[in-house]
Amino acid sequence: MKKYTEIKDISNLSEMIKEAILLKMQPLEFSELGKHKTLVMLFFNSSLRTRLSTEKAARNLGMHVSILNVNDAWNIEFEDGSIMNAGSSEHIKEAAQVISQYADIIAVRAFPSLTDKEKDASEFILNSFIKYATVPIVNMESATAHPLQALADAITITELSETRKPKVVLSWAPHPKPLPQAVANSFVEMMQNMEVDLTITHPEGYELDANITKNTPIHHNQEDALKDADFVYVKNWSNYKAYGQILNEDPNWMMTQEKLGKAKFMHCLPVRRNVVVEDAVLDSGQSVVINQANNRTFAAQVVLKNILENL
Amino acid sequence: MKKYTEIKDISNLSEMIKEAILLKMQPLEFSELGKHKTLVMLFFNSSLRTRLSTEKAARNLGMHVSILNVNDAWNIEFEDGSIMNAGSSEHIKEAAQVISQYADIIAVRAFPSLTDKEKDASEFILNSFIKYATVPIVNMESATAHPLQALADAITITELSETRKPKVVLSWAPHPKPLPQAVANSFVEMMQNMEVDLTITHPEGYELDANITKNTPIHHNQEDALKDADFVYVKNWSNYKAYGQILNEDPNWMMTQEKLGKAKFMHCLPVRRNVVVEDAVLDSGQSVVINQANNRTFAAQVVLKNILENL
Amino acid sequence: MKKYTEIKDISNLSEMIKEAILLKMQPLEFSELGKHKTLVMLFFNSSLRTRLSTEKAARNLGMHVSILNVNDAWNIEFEDGSIMNAGSSEHIKEAAQVISQYADIIAVRAFPSLTDKEKDASEFILNSFIKYATVPIVNMESATAHPLQALADAITITELSETRKPKVVLSWAPHPKPLPQAVANSFVEMMQNMEVDLTITHPEGYELDANITKNTPIHHNQEDALKDADFVYVKNWSNYKAYGQILNEDPNWMMTQEKLGKAKFMHCLPVRRNVVVEDAVLDSGQSVVINQANNRTFAAQVVLKNILENL
Repeated sequence: MKKYTEIKDISNLSEMIKEAILLKMQPLEFSELGKHKTLVMLFFNSSLRTRLSTEKAARNLGMHVSILNVNDAWNIEFEDGSIMNAGSSEHIKEAAQVISQYADIIAVRAFPSLTDKEKDASEFILNSFIKYATVPIVNMESATAHPLQALADAITITELSETRKPKVVLSWAPHPKPLPQAVANSFVEMMQNMEVDLTITHPEGYELDANITKNTPIHHNQEDALKDADFVYVKNWSNYKAYGQILNEDPNWMMTQEKLGKAKFMHCLPVRRNVVVEDAVLDSGQSVVINQANNRTFAAQVVLKNILENL
Repeated sequence: MKKYTEIKDISNLSEMIKEAILLKMQPLEFSELGKHKTLVMLFFNSSLRTRLSTEKAARNLGMHVSILNVNDAWNIEFEDGSIMNAGSSEHIKEAAQVISQYADIIAVRAFPSLTDKEKDASEFILNSFIKYATVPIVNMESATAHPLQALADAITITELSETRKPKVVLSWAPHPKPLPQAVANSFVEMMQNMEVDLTITHPEGYELDANITKNTPIHHNQEDALKDADFVYVKNWSNYKAYGQILNEDPNWMMTQEKLGKAKFMHCLPVRRNVVVEDAVLDSGQSVVINQANNRTFAAQVVLKNILENL
Repeated sequence: MKKYTEIKDISNLSEMIKEAILLKMQPLEFSELGKHKTLVMLFFNSSLRTRLSTEKAARNLGMHVSILNVNDAWNIEFEDGSIMNAGSSEHIKEAAQVISQYADIIAVRAFPSLTDKEKDASEFILNSFIKYATVPIVNMESATAHPLQALADAITITELSETRKPKVVLSWAPHPKPLPQAVANSFVEMMQNMEVDLTITHPEGYELDANITKNTPIHHNQEDALKDADFVYVKNWSNYKAYGQILNEDPNWMMTQEKLGKAKFMHCLPVRRNVVVEDAVLDSGQSVVINQANNRTFAAQVVLKNILENL
């Protein structure tokens, strides 16, 4: 593995999931692999799970970890050829090359603006790091993708599935603030690579990028979509067409115990209780959100392990 | 030891103090005990001593340390059953369980509001972590208690006392900003468990919680209280009855060399010079504030050691 | 080495540079030297290179690193005898002594105000740490000096020089914000100690402190100064006489490929492209800014190594 910035970077998913589950059983088996190697984690945005789980994964492999909130450093310029006489002090060309000299792997979190669709779609921050850094890049959630979360989700479904080909439903939920499509995008792409029966349900007009959903069935009737589901992944995203807008706050899309049926409940967290999902679901044995969060460590660890083996 | 969130968690104080003094002499004797274990330190508020001394203590025991300023993550909701459609993105139920999966011990700093007496008294942040986390919790100063500081103070008095039963005076001091009662509370509780003659002195109306002071003598005449003192612990706290208010700024309560007599001067730091205590005291050989700060490391280390031994 | 706060702390520069180059070849040769020792890095200001390179250097030597953004702790008072009833919560006397107990070496970054010339010249922050701390101090850029950067620059010139006594030109450049003189000062002082032919060029009135430039030739005609240069170090500084002001924004002082000739281009970074220097220079093989940044690690490492050997 040369990097992990998108789902496509995984060459053999089922092998990777197996390896992650083995790491979960023996997290310290490769505790010398990363010795004297440094993971630099760069945060343009807030983090709790990603920060702590990736740090833990790196240390399980014996790595050093340096964490930098980019706001504590300099404003970075991403435009080529710009005359830097305004807010930005440092160009990504220098920043990425420089950090590469202090790091063996660089992990980056950079959320979308949700105001400039084209710029977000270009993944200019993540792709600039890929372009200018001289060490492997790991995506800790970018403008349009959250592949570490999707890998943790794939591990979770593999561990907990009781059928050969489970029915998995991605169900949109209301939310008071505009959220990225990243988690939904990566979850869809990941599930398309697994032996699952994937269905997406959301209000009319809330279609995700068609280049991602492809021929995955989409229902606007949530009840129909949820029928006989084994796993229900609930997640808000802001509108993709009317980019970044909130066009629907209908509380009927909130997940309830009744709608969930016998399915397992999934969410990437953080989750707003009684807005996205009612307390009864989260507090029931059907919620596997804590398992998902735990698997973030082993998703990160299997990725870092594969990258370290290819350094 | 299963946790250290209050003084009561110490089953054998004199044994614990002895052990801390031994650790001070040989800080690296148990440098393998915490190997591959992680201390996650969560700060809702500012820190210097607590941050650096606890980090050092953990590393002396071979632990990894992850430090998270909670403001860099998500606003946490503590109310049960709330509809989370406002400022909070994540409920403590999830946050505490999730972090428990990345940590072997969680340490939390969460100051009081000083505006809502009942809520502060409920210790809702600390107690929520105790309730929902699945790993031991250490209190790095909560709304009403600072037990790591009090343990460092107990170590300091034990080391420096020249009499069998020293006279210890807790003396209120003026301060321009409203401060918590936490340090004073824990110091009083700690001293009540030691072989000392404890006296409290403060202006009328500045009584601490009577459930804490119990039958400890309280003087409103500072001079009388200080007579023949061996240790004088100076500390401001805002009013407890008129909760969080500053009703007295009388500079005559500032500690001076003259008032101190031959006693040793104690303070938890940070301390405002020439407001809480005059320069002459802090710059004299009678000040033991630097010793106290040093003992913060060994207070934290003996606590972490005892918790690690019970994991 | 007892500290590294100014160029003068280096007793044998050529020996030190040689040692740094050896460390660059075998960065882990002394990976046990700093075992169980702690470097506390205190930031009063932003940092990227200094933060990551110094952290890496310390870990190459086996040290633990604790990083504290001072803004996450308490406002520190530096005035002697002040009545601390305003914004500052803690006096440097306590802070420095306390941190010394948690650290084996303390590194400090504290930029100038650029408004109070005398106060900046007094280096009150750095010198207060030197005065009150009981462990060695490393300067990570202070009000008037950046000796770690200058050492990295000396290493870079030594590595890349193709002549016995290269011509080195320090060339002022325009910049939209007032910047310190620290980098320029330390570079000049460092070059004065090396076998180089040093020339400074800047607009009239932009003279640096004469106590630093001494008899180093100064040209106001950039073209003349640059003639036959081997290394051109480009750097903005705000006016020193009209302290901290921007009296000149003439874009003709920007470094271009044409002006540079065959010289190597140096800059400490971060650099504003097409304001300080045009893209063509930075993107050419003549730019050695990435080498300079890499050498920050080994400058810090040789300094820490020498200090550790003298603890």
